[in-house]
Amino acid sequence: MIISKDVKAFDGVNEALVGMGTDLNREIAENLGLNAEGFEAVTANDFFIAADCDSEEVFQKVIENVDEMLNKKAEKSKAEYVPPTLEGALKVEKDLNMAVISVPGRYAADVARDCLEHDINVMLFSDNVTIEEEKELKEYAVSKELLVMGPDCGTAIINNVPLAFANVVKSGNIGLVCASGTGAQEVSSIIDQLGGGISQLLGTGGRDLRSEIGGLMMKQCLNALIEDAKTEIIVLVSKPPAAEIEKQIFEIASKTEKPVVVCFIGGNVEEIKKSGLYVAVSLEDAAHKAVQLAKEETVTDFTTFAMGQEKAEELAAEEVSKMAEGQKYVRGLYTGGTICDEAMKLLIDDLGSIRSNIPLKPEDRLEDARNSASVEHTFLDFGDDEFTVGRPHPMIDPSLRAERVAEEAKDPQTAVILVDCVIGYGSHEDPAKELSDAVRKAKETAAKEGRYLSVVATVCGTEGDPQSRTATSLQLANAGAIVLPSNAQATRFVQTILKKLQ
Amino acid sequence: MIISKDVKAFDGVNEALVGMGTDLNREIAENLGLNAEGFEAVTANDFFIAADCDSEEVFQKVIENVDEMLNKKAEKSKAEYVPPTLEGALKVEKDLNMAVISVPGRYAADVARDCLEHDINVMLFSDNVTIEEEKELKEYAVSKELLVMGPDCGTAIINNVPLAFANVVKSGNIGLVCASGTGAQEVSSIIDQLGGGISQLLGTGGRDLRSEIGGLMMKQCLNALIEDAKTEIIVLVSKPPAAEIEKQIFEIASKTEKPVVVCFIGGNVEEIKKSGLYVAVSLEDAAHKAVQLAKEETVTDFTTFAMGQEKAEELAAEEVSKMAEGQKYVRGLYTGGTICDEAMKLLIDDLGSIRSNIPLKPEDRLEDARNSASVEHTFLDFGDDEFTVGRPHPMIDPSLRAERVAEEAKDPQTAVILVDCVIGYGSHEDPAKELSDAVRKAKETAAKEGRYLSVVATVCGTEGDPQSRTATSLQLANAGAIVLPSNAQATRFVQTILKKLQ
Repeated sequence: MIISKDVKAFDGVNEALVGMGTDLNREIAENLGLNAEGFEAVTANDFFIAADCDSEEVFQKVIENVDEMLNKKAEKSKAEYVPPTLEGALKVEKDLNMAVISVPGRYAADVARDCLEHDINVMLFSDNVTIEEEKELKEYAVSKELLVMGPDCGTAIINNVPLAFANVVKSGNIGLVCASGTGAQEVSSIIDQLGGGISQLLGTGGRDLRSEIGGLMMKQCLNALIEDAKTEIIVLVSKPPAAEIEKQIFEIASKTEKPVVVCFIGGNVEEIKKSGLYVAVSLEDAAHKAVQLAKEETVTDFTTFAMGQEKAEELAAEEVSKMAEGQKYVRGLYTGGTICDEAMKLLIDDLGSIRSNIPLKPEDRLEDARNSASVEHTFLDFGDDEFTVGRPHPMIDPSLRAERVAEEAKDPQTAVILVDCVIGYGSHEDPAKELSDAVRKAKETAAKEGRYLSVVATVCGTEGDPQSRTATSLQLANAGAIVLPSNAQATRFVQTILKKLQ
Repeated sequence: MIISKDVKAFDGVNEALVGMGTDLNREIAENLGLNAEGFEAVTANDFFIAADCDSEEVFQKVIENVDEMLNKKAEKSKAEYVPPTLEGALKVEKDLNMAVISVPGRYAADVARDCLEHDINVMLFSDNVTIEEEKELKEYAVSKELLVMGPDCGTAIINNVPLAFANVVKSGNIGLVCASGTGAQEVSSIIDQLGGGISQLLGTGGRDLRSEIGGLMMKQCLNALIEDAKTEIIVLVSKPPAAEIEKQIFEIASKTEKPVVVCFIGGNVEEIKKSGLYVAVSLEDAAHKAVQLAKEETVTDFTTFAMGQEKAEELAAEEVSKMAEGQKYVRGLYTGGTICDEAMKLLIDDLGSIRSNIPLKPEDRLEDARNSASVEHTFLDFGDDEFTVGRPHPMIDPSLRAERVAEEAKDPQTAVILVDCVIGYGSHEDPAKELSDAVRKAKETAAKEGRYLSVVATVCGTEGDPQSRTATSLQLANAGAIVLPSNAQATRFVQTILKKLQ
C-alpha cells in the first residue's frame, strides 16, 4: 500500500496500486479503473503492479522502481532468518514467549490458539476476530496464565520492546494496561516527557471490558503488573466498563500496595475514589499522576496548560482577534480514535452537541462522514472503518485527513481545526509533512477569503521516536499551527478560543 | 525606561523619555531632542516625563497614563513595607542573611560592605565596581564565610528563590556555581527540562577567576555547595580561568565525594579529567551530565540533537534547498553574552574566523558594531556595553536586536540568522513578540528578493517561567524559525546548514 503511494507520486503516473491479488485489492483496483485486460487472471497468490501511466516507458520505469523498492526491503531483512511457521520459529528460538499476530482476521484465532498451546503470550494485532473466538482465546489464556492482548491491539511495550504502534519511551517503574492504542500512546509518551519511565505497556483490545468478555484480559494484565517486580505504579486506561466488571477490577486494584491510577474517562469517579485508587480526568492527567507517584510527590489534578492559564488565554485571544464574523465552529480531524474521543468528552459539556462518526450520543452521528460536509461542531476519527476501507490507517497514510484539513478551511463557519499527529513505530515516517502542507494551504484559503483560520495541533509521541517530537512539532508550528504538549491541552485551547468567540 | 517604551507606542507620540533626572537620563533626553524649555531645571531628585507629541492633548493623555502606570506599580507593592535603609530592614527582619544590591556602581561597594558587616550575604547586581573594591569585599567575605556574588552578577537561585534574571526551575540536588548570567540560566533551564532539579545556583561575577581576584568566590561557593546538605552534584560554569587558579579549584573539587561537572568551555580537558572531574563540552552537555549523575545513569557526552542527527540533517537540507546562490554567512544576534560566546566557540573550528564585538580572537573584533554592517560570519552580543549605552539590557528591551534581525535579512550573503530568546524573571514579559515580528519581516524581505532566509532560534528558560517556554517557542516557530531545545543544538544546526552550503 505504501509502495502504491510512492508509485503514484512518479511523473506520468495518474493512479497506481501495488499489492497481492486479494479480493479486497482486486476490488480497489476495479474502483480505481486499474483492472485492465488480463487483470481477471490475478489471484490472491499473485503480486501485481497496476498503474495508469502516460506512456509505456513510464510503466517500465514503474516496474523497475517497484523492483528496487522491494529489493531494498528484502536486503534489509536478508541477514535475519524469517521462519515461515510457528514450528520453525520454535526450532530456532525455544524460549519464545511472545508472538505478534497480524494475519487476516479469519485465520488469526487459530494462530493465536496455536501460540497459547505452546505457552506463548499473544499480541493479536489482527481485527475481524469474532467475539466468541476472543472469549474462548482469553479464557484459555487465563487458564494458562498467559496474555492475549487484542484482538485489534495496536500498541504494547514488553520489557522495553515496543510492539506495533508504540513510542520510544524511557524505561521505568510505571506499568500500563490500556484498552486502546492512541490512549496508550498518549499516556506513555507524556510519562516519558515528564521524565518518568515505563515498565510494561499491556493492551487488552477494545472489546475486553464488554460484558461478553467481562474484562478477562484487563484483570489478567492488572494481576501481571501487580506481580511484575519492575512495576511500582499502575495505570489503567479505558472507556468506562460496565458497573459489574468495573467492580471486579477495582477489587483487584484495591488489594495491591502499588498505587493505581484509573483513567476511565466519563466513568464513575466516586467508585474509583472509594476503592482507594487515583482518578485521572484526562489521559495527560493520568500520566501526570503516575509520574507524581513515581517521584513520591503530592498527587494533584492537572487541568490547565503547561504554559499557564494566563499565557494560553493571551494566545487564544490573539487567535480570536484575527477571525472574521461568522467563524464559530471547531472541526476536529483525528487519526487516533481514543484521543478523538477524549477531545469530544472534554468539550461536550461546553458545546452540547458534537457531530461525529464516533459520536458520544447516538443522535449526533454524522452519517457517511467520509463524503459528507461537517455540520456545526464536528469531530472525525479517520481511523474508523468507513475511512479505512481500501486504504491503510491514517497513521500510516495521512493523505485523506490532510485533504479534509484543506477542505474544512473553505467553510466560512470554521473557526478552528484541531488535529493530532501520532508518531512512533508503525506511524508514517514523516506524518507532519503532508499535514503541515495542508495547514499552510488551509490558512491561505481562509486568508484569501478574509478569514483567519486557527489550527491547533498536538503531537502524540516522544523525542526518541524515529520522527522526533521536536522535528514534528516544528514542522507544524512553522506552518502556523499552535502546537500544544498534549491532546487535553490542545482541546482546552480550542475550548478557550470557542469561549472567546461567544 | 520600560514606561518610556510604552509611552512611545502611544498614537501621536514621536519620542518619549520617562525617568529620574540623573545625568545619564538628562543626556539621553538631550540626544533625543527632548530637552525642551525648562528641562535644565530637572535634577537627579526629580521624576520627569519628556515627550515629543503631535498635540497638547496627546501630552495630557501621556501624563495621565504615566500616572496610572505608576499607581499600578505602587498599588502592587502597597501591601509590603519597603524599608529605605539596611538598618530599617534589619529592624523588621532580624534574621536577614541575603541582600541583593543594585544601587549605582560607585555606591555599591559601601552598601555591600555594610551588609557583610551585618553578616549578610551579598548578591551584587551592580556593575562599575572597581576590581580593587571587589577584591577587598571578597577577602572580607571569605574571612567571615559569607558570599559576595558579583559584581555584575545577574543570576542566582538560593533555596529555591530566584534572584534577578533567573528561571523557575524545579527544586533538586544539583548545585551550580556560575561566573556568568546566561550560562547559569542555560544550564539550570536544561536541567529542569531534563527532569532534574536545582539545590542552589550561586554566581561569582565575571572577573572572579581573573588573577587579581584569584577565584576567591568560585572557591568559596564551591566549598559552600560541598557543605550544603541539599546539594549532591556540583556544576561549575565559567570561561577557563588562569592555570594557577584552575589548579586551586580542582584541588578543592577533587577532594569532595560529590561528583563535580566542569564546564570551562575551551579549558584544559586533561587537567579536569586528571582531577577526577567530569568535563562538559557545552552548557547543555553540563546539564545532561549533571542529570545523568543525579539519576545515577552512565555519564555520556551529549554532542548531537535531541531529534537525532538524521532528522536534523533532513531539516537542514530542506532549509538549504530553498536558499539562493551567494547566501553563505551566519549572523548570530544574541541577547545573552555567554551563550553568544558558547555558539562562537562551537563554530570557530569550522568557520576559522567569526567577527564579533566580543570576539574569540582580537583580530576578529568588529569595531563600532552597533553602527557597522556585519562582515562575513558575524556574532553580536547585544548585552555588551556599546549596545546598552543609554538603554536597558536587550533581555529587557528586545527592540535593538529585533531591528538588527530585519536588517541582516537585506544582505544577500546572509544564509542563516541565529538568535536566542532568554525568558524568566527579569526578562521582558514577552520577548518573543517583537522577535517573531522581526523574523517574519526578515523572511519576507529575503523572499521578495528571491532568497530564503533560515532563522534558527533557541529559547533559554523553562515552562514555569512567566513567559513560558512553550508559548515563547511557539511564537517563534509560527513565524518560521527553527526552534531548537538548547543553544548548543541551535548552533550545531547552523553548523549543519553551513556545511551543506559549502
